[in-house]
Amino acid sequence: MSSSQTSIPKGTRDFGPVEMAGRNHIFSVIKNIFRTYGYQPLETPAMETLSTLLGKYGEEGDKLLFRILNSGDFLSKVSERDLLEKNHAALFHGITEKGLRYDLTVPFARYVVQHQNEITFPFKRFQIQPVWRADRPQKGRYREFYQCDVDVIGSRSLLSEVELVQIMDDVFIGLDISVIIRINNRKILTGLVEAMGQSARFTEITVIIDKLEKTGAGRMFEELSGIGVSAEGLGKLKQYLELESGIKGKLEFLGSLLKDTPAGLQGVAEIETVMEYLDELEIRSEIIFDLSLTRGLNYYTGAIFEVVAENVKMGSLCGGGRYDDLTGVFGLKDVSGVGVSFGADRIYDVLKQTDRFSDLAKSSTRIMFVNFGKTEEKYCLKLLEKVRKSGISAELYPDQVRIKKQLSYAHAKNIPFVALIGSTEMQTHKLTLKIMASGEQKILDLNELIEFISES
Amino acid sequence: MSSSQTSIPKGTRDFGPVEMAGRNHIFSVIKNIFRTYGYQPLETPAMETLSTLLGKYGEEGDKLLFRILNSGDFLSKVSERDLLEKNHAALFHGITEKGLRYDLTVPFARYVVQHQNEITFPFKRFQIQPVWRADRPQKGRYREFYQCDVDVIGSRSLLSEVELVQIMDDVFIGLDISVIIRINNRKILTGLVEAMGQSARFTEITVIIDKLEKTGAGRMFEELSGIGVSAEGLGKLKQYLELESGIKGKLEFLGSLLKDTPAGLQGVAEIETVMEYLDELEIRSEIIFDLSLTRGLNYYTGAIFEVVAENVKMGSLCGGGRYDDLTGVFGLKDVSGVGVSFGADRIYDVLKQTDRFSDLAKSSTRIMFVNFGKTEEKYCLKLLEKVRKSGISAELYPDQVRIKKQLSYAHAKNIPFVALIGSTEMQTHKLTLKIMASGEQKILDLNELIEFISES
Repeated sequence: MSSSQTSIPKGTRDFGPVEMAGRNHIFSVIKNIFRTYGYQPLETPAMETLSTLLGKYGEEGDKLLFRILNSGDFLSKVSERDLLEKNHAALFHGITEKGLRYDLTVPFARYVVQHQNEITFPFKRFQIQPVWRADRPQKGRYREFYQCDVDVIGSRSLLSEVELVQIMDDVFIGLDISVIIRINNRKILTGLVEAMGQSARFTEITVIIDKLEKTGAGRMFEELSGIGVSAEGLGKLKQYLELESGIKGKLEFLGSLLKDTPAGLQGVAEIETVMEYLDELEIRSEIIFDLSLTRGLNYYTGAIFEVVAENVKMGSLCGGGRYDDLTGVFGLKDVSGVGVSFGADRIYDVLKQTDRFSDLAKSSTRIMFVNFGKTEEKYCLKLLEKVRKSGISAELYPDQVRIKKQLSYAHAKNIPFVALIGSTEMQTHKLTLKIMASGEQKILDLNELIEFISES
Repeated sequence: MSSSQTSIPKGTRDFGPVEMAGRNHIFSVIKNIFRTYGYQPLETPAMETLSTLLGKYGEEGDKLLFRILNSGDFLSKVSERDLLEKNHAALFHGITEKGLRYDLTVPFARYVVQHQNEITFPFKRFQIQPVWRADRPQKGRYREFYQCDVDVIGSRSLLSEVELVQIMDDVFIGLDISVIIRINNRKILTGLVEAMGQSARFTEITVIIDKLEKTGAGRMFEELSGIGVSAEGLGKLKQYLELESGIKGKLEFLGSLLKDTPAGLQGVAEIETVMEYLDELEIRSEIIFDLSLTRGLNYYTGAIFEVVAENVKMGSLCGGGRYDDLTGVFGLKDVSGVGVSFGADRIYDVLKQTDRFSDLAKSSTRIMFVNFGKTEEKYCLKLLEKVRKSGISAELYPDQVRIKKQLSYAHAKNIPFVALIGSTEMQTHKLTLKIMASGEQKILDLNELIEFISES
């Protein structure tokens, strides 16, 4: 057997029964909360046309798209000359027209534009699907991973921001993970960059500020100074980033720092409103108004969010924000939306590290009937019909092999109860129940068995 | 706006909230039944290496694989000469190493071989994931569609066949679709071809028999005669296919027709055993021992199954069978398994045609709170917390717009109840509930509201 025949592409994973139990738990908690807030499910195809995907994720993102080779005569649209010259760009263009979904946001925007006449706005949708990126695989970074996105599009109401914070809080409380929810507003950053006298270079400046955690403050200031930010500008940024204060203090400080920037002041007002609403609700996670939060992506225009675990070292578990023109690139202008995306894989890793999955095996088979022979088989099959009808997952070991082997199967599969039915049991209409954890045995009739397992 | 920017690849589909409600219903019925029988979930990557996929689906299948272009310098492994000569085979080989999953069976076999040392056999797994085929799209045939596979591998017990019939019955009863479950056994076909004196050409013959329904009997016999099957052989086949009789009669006839073919007799004995077990169980669907059933795929070696809807014209909704050597191609010999695959897309189409989805909208938002202004918003948010905590999906309209617009949103989203809370209601701690279907209004307090909706 060649090993290449039984391997999977690097950066991808199989999820066996144990991993699936954990993953299904996460998805089910998330979905139920999304539904409770009135969000509806959407699924889009794994493949999108390249014209939908290209140019949406920056130059680096374009390189990370998985492209699908055209079917049939894939060279038919390619010129001899491009082939000879190994003209990558032209060949790319000629031999591939589709790519795998890179995130859920762009397909969502494409869907909204394509179906704008059927959709009632505001449109509250959630989407839980895998995405693919040809990133270099490393610990915690995969080439296939799930995103769980929740967005409301077609409304500028700050209530949506408030609702998303409630959802983030509910999800992580539901998953029993202590988190910190960081909030900021891109308009505040716009104001800050304006106050620094660098309005024309907003993207460049925020990209540098975004690297603060990675590079450290010294390096960041150096870099900014290098591209010509004045000492005064740097001073303002320093003040901004080093401000240690509660929410009220921060808002006051910003009101003064950004007093000449209308965008900045609007950002301050937005955060103030969101905080005011949240104050009256029962949010159990810690919320931090974090001025250093920038979020890399350029399409954010208002509130931005990021969630990190409190006690586990791990990147952000959730993030998002408001975008005022996501669908503009597809020709539909002025449709504001806001959303966040939960990273199922990182959440899984956190739960695994904190050993939160131990109870989930319960969701599997509850009772196995031992197979003693043909007569017993038939007798058991009829009992099994009744056990399953009462909602209990049950199975009969399919082969008539040594009991030891059958019990070790039950053990490996984490089945808590085993029923033994031989000729005595068939005569007396009873069965012997073995409790796997303790080894204890009980003689029960079928109704007693169902009751016992249902209550265990 | 160019239309190409808002389209999706041909043969693929978006699933909006309405379609998703129907699809989730199907998946949830199927999953719950799989679990009740002790099957565990498995998921494998969308991409597999081409060495895993190629050669498993015949020449035609290889052509229908979606191939992923290698990342980075995809031409690095390609020679100048192959490029110049447009050598498809060599270029294919050089520029692609991965393909999209074509079915769930081959990835399952690959998984079993790769993880053989961690798996406790018999391994009962189910897998519900999309697959991709570059087929020419047409009505009912898509390039991306879901399969729902359930298999037990590592046991030769006929109890597994019995269990799969129970599962098929439970699923279609659960989905409220009347079906006919057709059963046959490939060993009987082996015996038949042997009795026809054509053992060496088993595949060729069964492929022709498989087309019976499409081509009609006359054309089939012509074709068989054309490849040299004797008149005596054709006579036996005619007898076999035209036999109208109950299960007992068929088994007796086959016992005599196949008396000199050990394989044939074993097939007869297997069917007899399976039927004997099924007889004692409460199977509600019609079961037909259908001698004309062949199932195209060559890896089946024992029982074969196919399910068709009783009152709706549609291809098979489910099919499968026993395979004695699926993992052999990956180097693990002698592991027998049996499984069936449910076609979620066809099942969806049947349910849609018979209008079975009308109740499902219920699963969406149950109550919308009208937004009258800032003071009311805050008041409503606190009530909403309590409504959701009692498990009711609820939302507050995010914008302070005309009530008519808010109500038409509720109507479009199929929300059955609307709560109106203005200053009077806030003072009296009551709310006005509007029942959308009848237009009726009620004055309730919060507890009464929760009770009323929970019981509706």
